[in-house]
Amino acid sequence: MIIENISHSRIDKIDFNDISFGNHYSDHMFYCKFENGKWKNPIIKPFGDITVSPLSLVFHYGQAIFEGMKAYKDKYGNVFLFRPLENFNRLNSSAKRLEMPLISKSLFRDGLKKLLSIDKKWIPNNYGQSLYIRPFLIASDGKLSANPSKKYIFMIICTTASNYYLTPLKVKIEQKYSRSADGGIGFTKAAGNYASSFYPTRIAQEEGYDQILWTDSSTHSFIEESGTMNVFFYIKNNLITAPANKKILNGITRKSIITIAKKEGIKVKECNFSVSELIYNLRKNLVKEIFGCGTAVVVNHFKKIGYKFKNYYLPNISNKKRISFFLKKNLLDIQHNVINDPFGWRFKV
Amino acid sequence: MIIENISHSRIDKIDFNDISFGNHYSDHMFYCKFENGKWKNPIIKPFGDITVSPLSLVFHYGQAIFEGMKAYKDKYGNVFLFRPLENFNRLNSSAKRLEMPLISKSLFRDGLKKLLSIDKKWIPNNYGQSLYIRPFLIASDGKLSANPSKKYIFMIICTTASNYYLTPLKVKIEQKYSRSADGGIGFTKAAGNYASSFYPTRIAQEEGYDQILWTDSSTHSFIEESGTMNVFFYIKNNLITAPANKKILNGITRKSIITIAKKEGIKVKECNFSVSELIYNLRKNLVKEIFGCGTAVVVNHFKKIGYKFKNYYLPNISNKKRISFFLKKNLLDIQHNVINDPFGWRFKV
Repeated sequence: MIIENISHSRIDKIDFNDISFGNHYSDHMFYCKFENGKWKNPIIKPFGDITVSPLSLVFHYGQAIFEGMKAYKDKYGNVFLFRPLENFNRLNSSAKRLEMPLISKSLFRDGLKKLLSIDKKWIPNNYGQSLYIRPFLIASDGKLSANPSKKYIFMIICTTASNYYLTPLKVKIEQKYSRSADGGIGFTKAAGNYASSFYPTRIAQEEGYDQILWTDSSTHSFIEESGTMNVFFYIKNNLITAPANKKILNGITRKSIITIAKKEGIKVKECNFSVSELIYNLRKNLVKEIFGCGTAVVVNHFKKIGYKFKNYYLPNISNKKRISFFLKKNLLDIQHNVINDPFGWRFKV
Repeated sequence: MIIENISHSRIDKIDFNDISFGNHYSDHMFYCKFENGKWKNPIIKPFGDITVSPLSLVFHYGQAIFEGMKAYKDKYGNVFLFRPLENFNRLNSSAKRLEMPLISKSLFRDGLKKLLSIDKKWIPNNYGQSLYIRPFLIASDGKLSANPSKKYIFMIICTTASNYYLTPLKVKIEQKYSRSADGGIGFTKAAGNYASSFYPTRIAQEEGYDQILWTDSSTHSFIEESGTMNVFFYIKNNLITAPANKKILNGITRKSIITIAKKEGIKVKECNFSVSELIYNLRKNLVKEIFGCGTAVVVNHFKKIGYKFKNYYLPNISNKKRISFFLKKNLLDIQHNVINDPFGWRFKV
């Protein structure tokens, strides 16, 4: 692997006590091309612009996928990734569905490890902060006929991360627009899954909400996921979440939350959960908590649910009494090497 | 508008008797940036690579839309566009749904006209050939949080075009995968709509078909569109096609075919058309023709339909007797200024 070091780091400009998600990008990036059926010439170089053909299929037919992962430090400065194999596997499962070339484990691992070792000082020391890592794969050539590209670029870029949302969320149950369809690509991290959400989300924001709670495209009667989060409902001592099917992202935070909850003796139900059942329970004040989770978001609870021009408010309880807070702390404690890792999720870099 | 001319044209390398779709790109391209809420500094420059940030939202969240249009020559060398206002309007309707900035009519028109005047010699003289024009709009910056970009690039590139398909098509009725959902972006020309079709299409190709006939994602019982084409069925003297709804592209060729057919006294039905009705009619040998149409494809008839591991063959009739051939010729005659244009579709450049 070729390494091109920057001449002067930008890190002195960062105040780690004042970072927000995605505002500071680390000094270097990993870059590798796929041509003639092979990944070749991996390189780590200064973070900066790339040059591509205007024919690149990512521009015309959306062949683009990504992953989101994080690197954490413990109080001794050791660096850990969280379940990186899960990201690796999901990236390749997205690649397969989008007819893109698979990434080898060694390319993914070596690129990631080398980049993190070079930009190690960009990983914040503070508990709850991290370096968000964005591996992504784009089609870089084509000829305007609607067929898969023969050339691709695989890159990894990094940004300092703190809280994605700063407050509890107001969320609207969507009854018109939809995120994905049966037989579609909702389960992948394809770029094309996201832009379609911007317009419905802006409408929701103009109505006073932060995010949308997506429902199935056929009937809008079953709950799917929200924004960039999987969603959990805590009702009558049951933690309920939609099954990770072909329409719903199989979130790594989602499955970690489920595992931690089960270990702690919390009853978890992965099942189709209807909007009417949710509204019934909200009306009866039986919903203790609703929260979203994801790599970028970690865990963020909801405070208001909007449905058909009516708002339902979640109980205003202290963080100490929140199951979402308990699960989030448990997760962060594992990620930051504060407690034992009974599941083997931490990966020391 | 700034014009940067190439030093030496590549056109001498083209044999216009031997062009296939998307293999030769014209000398120049139109390029314009959107920053601080405004489109600025439009430029025509040599066709070539562009430089963008790795954060460009088109790579991560799929904010990318396009149009497909064609320029034709008549036998006197006059240049015509076909219904360009339709492309302009649809580009902006896609932009609106994807939360991208609208393009002004003057920017679209002036960029297009200037580019075509500079690259006029790239428009083939031959009847049935054309210069395929690809306007496209991509998000060129971002910060990895899932929100619309603030910067965009609008470009126009051109490629010589002859037949997109060389033969009649074998098409499989899809029963597992889907193209779009109610409440989704199927009606837009968003890049993200296309990559998801590559994998199911490859499977269909391995089974001996050329393309997929998409059905609704909820039940797979109603016909939508095929590949990059809208689809028509000619059954018992009725020309049947699915309505251009929120899931189906409102094709300009589609609506032109409908208008021409109606003028010629052919009965046209825009209605939900079920797979079972199609299969019933195929079994009874009542389906005279099935054909797809689109800007790139023009009109291309189908010869075989696959459904649940069974194949149905369309009648093998001569082109002279085909309604698809009649409609295609009528359309091309208007486009190439061979006959009168009663609809006002030709736009002289």
